[in-house]
Amino acid sequence: MSERLVIIGGDAAGMSAASQARRLKGPDELEIVAFERGHFTSYSACGIPYWVGGDVDERDELIARSPEEHRERAIDLRMRTEVVRIDVDGQRVLARDLESDGSGAEYWTSYDKLVIATGARPVRPPLGGIDAPGVHGVQTLDDGQALLDTLRRTEGRRAVVVGAGYIGVEMAEAMMNRGYEVTVVNRGAQPMSTLDADMGRLVGEAMAGMGIRMVNNAEVTKILTGDDRRVRAVATEDGEYPADVVILGIGVRPETGLAREAGLPVGTHGGLLTDRAMRVRGHENIWAGGDCVEVLDLVSGSERHIALGTHANKHGQVIGSNVGGGYATFPGVVGTAVSKVCELEIARTGLREKDAKAAGRQYVKVAIESTSRAGYYPGAALMTVQMLAERRTGRLLGVQIVGREGAAKRVDIAAVALTAGMTVEQMVSLDLGYAPPFSPVWDPVLVAARKAVTAVRKAG
Amino acid sequence: MSERLVIIGGDAAGMSAASQARRLKGPDELEIVAFERGHFTSYSACGIPYWVGGDVDERDELIARSPEEHRERAIDLRMRTEVVRIDVDGQRVLARDLESDGSGAEYWTSYDKLVIATGARPVRPPLGGIDAPGVHGVQTLDDGQALLDTLRRTEGRRAVVVGAGYIGVEMAEAMMNRGYEVTVVNRGAQPMSTLDADMGRLVGEAMAGMGIRMVNNAEVTKILTGDDRRVRAVATEDGEYPADVVILGIGVRPETGLAREAGLPVGTHGGLLTDRAMRVRGHENIWAGGDCVEVLDLVSGSERHIALGTHANKHGQVIGSNVGGGYATFPGVVGTAVSKVCELEIARTGLREKDAKAAGRQYVKVAIESTSRAGYYPGAALMTVQMLAERRTGRLLGVQIVGREGAAKRVDIAAVALTAGMTVEQMVSLDLGYAPPFSPVWDPVLVAARKAVTAVRKAG
Repeated sequence: MSERLVIIGGDAAGMSAASQARRLKGPDELEIVAFERGHFTSYSACGIPYWVGGDVDERDELIARSPEEHRERAIDLRMRTEVVRIDVDGQRVLARDLESDGSGAEYWTSYDKLVIATGARPVRPPLGGIDAPGVHGVQTLDDGQALLDTLRRTEGRRAVVVGAGYIGVEMAEAMMNRGYEVTVVNRGAQPMSTLDADMGRLVGEAMAGMGIRMVNNAEVTKILTGDDRRVRAVATEDGEYPADVVILGIGVRPETGLAREAGLPVGTHGGLLTDRAMRVRGHENIWAGGDCVEVLDLVSGSERHIALGTHANKHGQVIGSNVGGGYATFPGVVGTAVSKVCELEIARTGLREKDAKAAGRQYVKVAIESTSRAGYYPGAALMTVQMLAERRTGRLLGVQIVGREGAAKRVDIAAVALTAGMTVEQMVSLDLGYAPPFSPVWDPVLVAARKAVTAVRKAG
Repeated sequence: MSERLVIIGGDAAGMSAASQARRLKGPDELEIVAFERGHFTSYSACGIPYWVGGDVDERDELIARSPEEHRERAIDLRMRTEVVRIDVDGQRVLARDLESDGSGAEYWTSYDKLVIATGARPVRPPLGGIDAPGVHGVQTLDDGQALLDTLRRTEGRRAVVVGAGYIGVEMAEAMMNRGYEVTVVNRGAQPMSTLDADMGRLVGEAMAGMGIRMVNNAEVTKILTGDDRRVRAVATEDGEYPADVVILGIGVRPETGLAREAGLPVGTHGGLLTDRAMRVRGHENIWAGGDCVEVLDLVSGSERHIALGTHANKHGQVIGSNVGGGYATFPGVVGTAVSKVCELEIARTGLREKDAKAAGRQYVKVAIESTSRAGYYPGAALMTVQMLAERRTGRLLGVQIVGREGAAKRVDIAAVALTAGMTVEQMVSLDLGYAPPFSPVWDPVLVAARKAVTAVRKAG
């Protein structure tokens, strides 16, 4: 007897789950119905800044799998259809056809198994002018298209990016690449609040050096518009920043209104709570994954919300395996993230100082400078590596890296070491790849670990 | 009362030990005497191919610290002085001044603590013509200088490299960069016997594609010389390969004649045997490190000989700490190595198939193709990742990577995972850095791990 799997949300987590479930169970065993309210499926939202910036030519390059391709795999994908209610007791969802304007556009679909992959929505503070033409988020492909349309129609070349997290700095690069004069207006004292202050300062200085105007400690009070009601400037308490286009990169929140209304468990960060198998806590036949869930931070032991395509894909894979009768788990994250602004590479994993304090961990902090290759090898580029280790135990707590080519992905060494619960002393002996074109004889991460060992010993 | 530390060998391991010991103990507490038979100290032998190839302009760029710099740190460094005997019972060494030609050129120096860092010597098979002008090893800076002198004096532009391991392929690149017609004559069926056959084949194909003539399954029988007694060709059983210059890249053996004569313990690979503190087994006051020792392979549990600057530096650091009254250990290696030939990057860590067989481990093997960046991001380059995992336990046994930019250093992920004893299942959930310029949404190493998980399950 065939079961029906219903999936809400047709992007990374949802469609990965669908694909993996289909791999394990054919259409005779498992019917799969997926609802997507937008125009696209399975696309790389993380790629939008590079499309806007011109590194990627065509929108469709960001699409890993089109609706048609999913349908060819016997997935009943219903585009432009929004699920507006989940009836947990009745095991059914109410869907609305967004393209239909008549009655009868809503219908119930029952499920045996449900996957919630509703993603995240960008934060849009309730400021005057925020909905003016020329103000854009960059969360979805539709957002990206709208922004590109604005850029094509607008003559002025001044862009203001609000927010200096990953999306903010990536969009600053994108607009630089498009030839814009770029101002980044940022609430914090330095960009990248996901880094500690010293490391964020390095990023800010490097961005300023690229010709990006960095406005820190600045709270946006209003988006100013002209007589044509189009955006004209971004206002803060201290000043006005002329803008022909404004990009909001303030962050995202889990899109869990639907799940909340259905009584499903939501955590302090607003994300759905699941077990290791990505099953919604307390619900045998409901799974959730991607940007709408909270994940366990393996270092701090607490829950976090991290909107990142790589997690969404892993969640989908795990959910699909479990829904398809296999078994897989997603144990959690260590908080790894990498990014770049033009030539500057930025990476982090594990705890920041404030996370370590919040978690009640005593720590030592060290920072070193080294190079990506042997110093004498062409292209050797400076990088700064900061490392946090726990006092007494010497356990690695976190690593942040800011540098040029060859810097960011070195954070993977620390990500694996964190996952394994290594001490900085164990790290010093790590047998990492060495040859002059690839690393100094001591990899920068090991140089930091050596210094951390000394700091741990001194701290006693 | 001051102690005397005597060091035999003034390169990476020896002088790292000297520097670290000096950091911990001043000249009042510890006298340091170091003997070096060559003309240089503390240089990057791994950098020689890049100097020969022209990526590095000056020999001195390869020298991390000159004799004078060591002497400024109160290290009594005696250049061009060879230790010819170790008297273990008498706690003294006999040194010979190689620049002196008279009597009295030999003298005894007593020690309280001894460090043996005599390095490795290149294999030079006893072939006819092997000592002809134009035949060069590339083990020391002196070797590199001699080769460059030959290149300057020689008009012909045909180079034959004997051997296709790390030094062989790096020298092939160097000679390509110098504009030579390059032939690599190799005993094996494909280059890089440190890789499994399929991966070595990829390297061979790529090298051939660069215009390097690859002669496999070829045993050199003789170096043919002309009337002027200079090298003319390299002969194998099957043919002759015209050569204006011949470079020997056949490998190295631990330089342990002195230590053997002194009755110190030497392993099956000819290297000194030490404990984790790098103390020579059974000898309280003698340490050894660098290319003259054997190291524990943490994956197979057996001893290996690996001549690599990064290990030598770590050994020196550990020895210096222990000699200086601290405590440090070198637990072993997992067999990580990276290299490149022009644009081709090559990496390995852990066990090859034949190592796994020799160690009596049952395994599954998978290989995948993926890209260094998101597929749509400019510069995304193909790479092949091979992974070995143990049957039943699913433990990672080894990883090999062949690709282009961004391939080689990904092996560090596997190196840390191997050190931590991770299973491929644990690896699938690793929280690695993801952003389109740096990785596909599933890092290539994770794609391989996923496939390995499936293979382990199927193998039962």
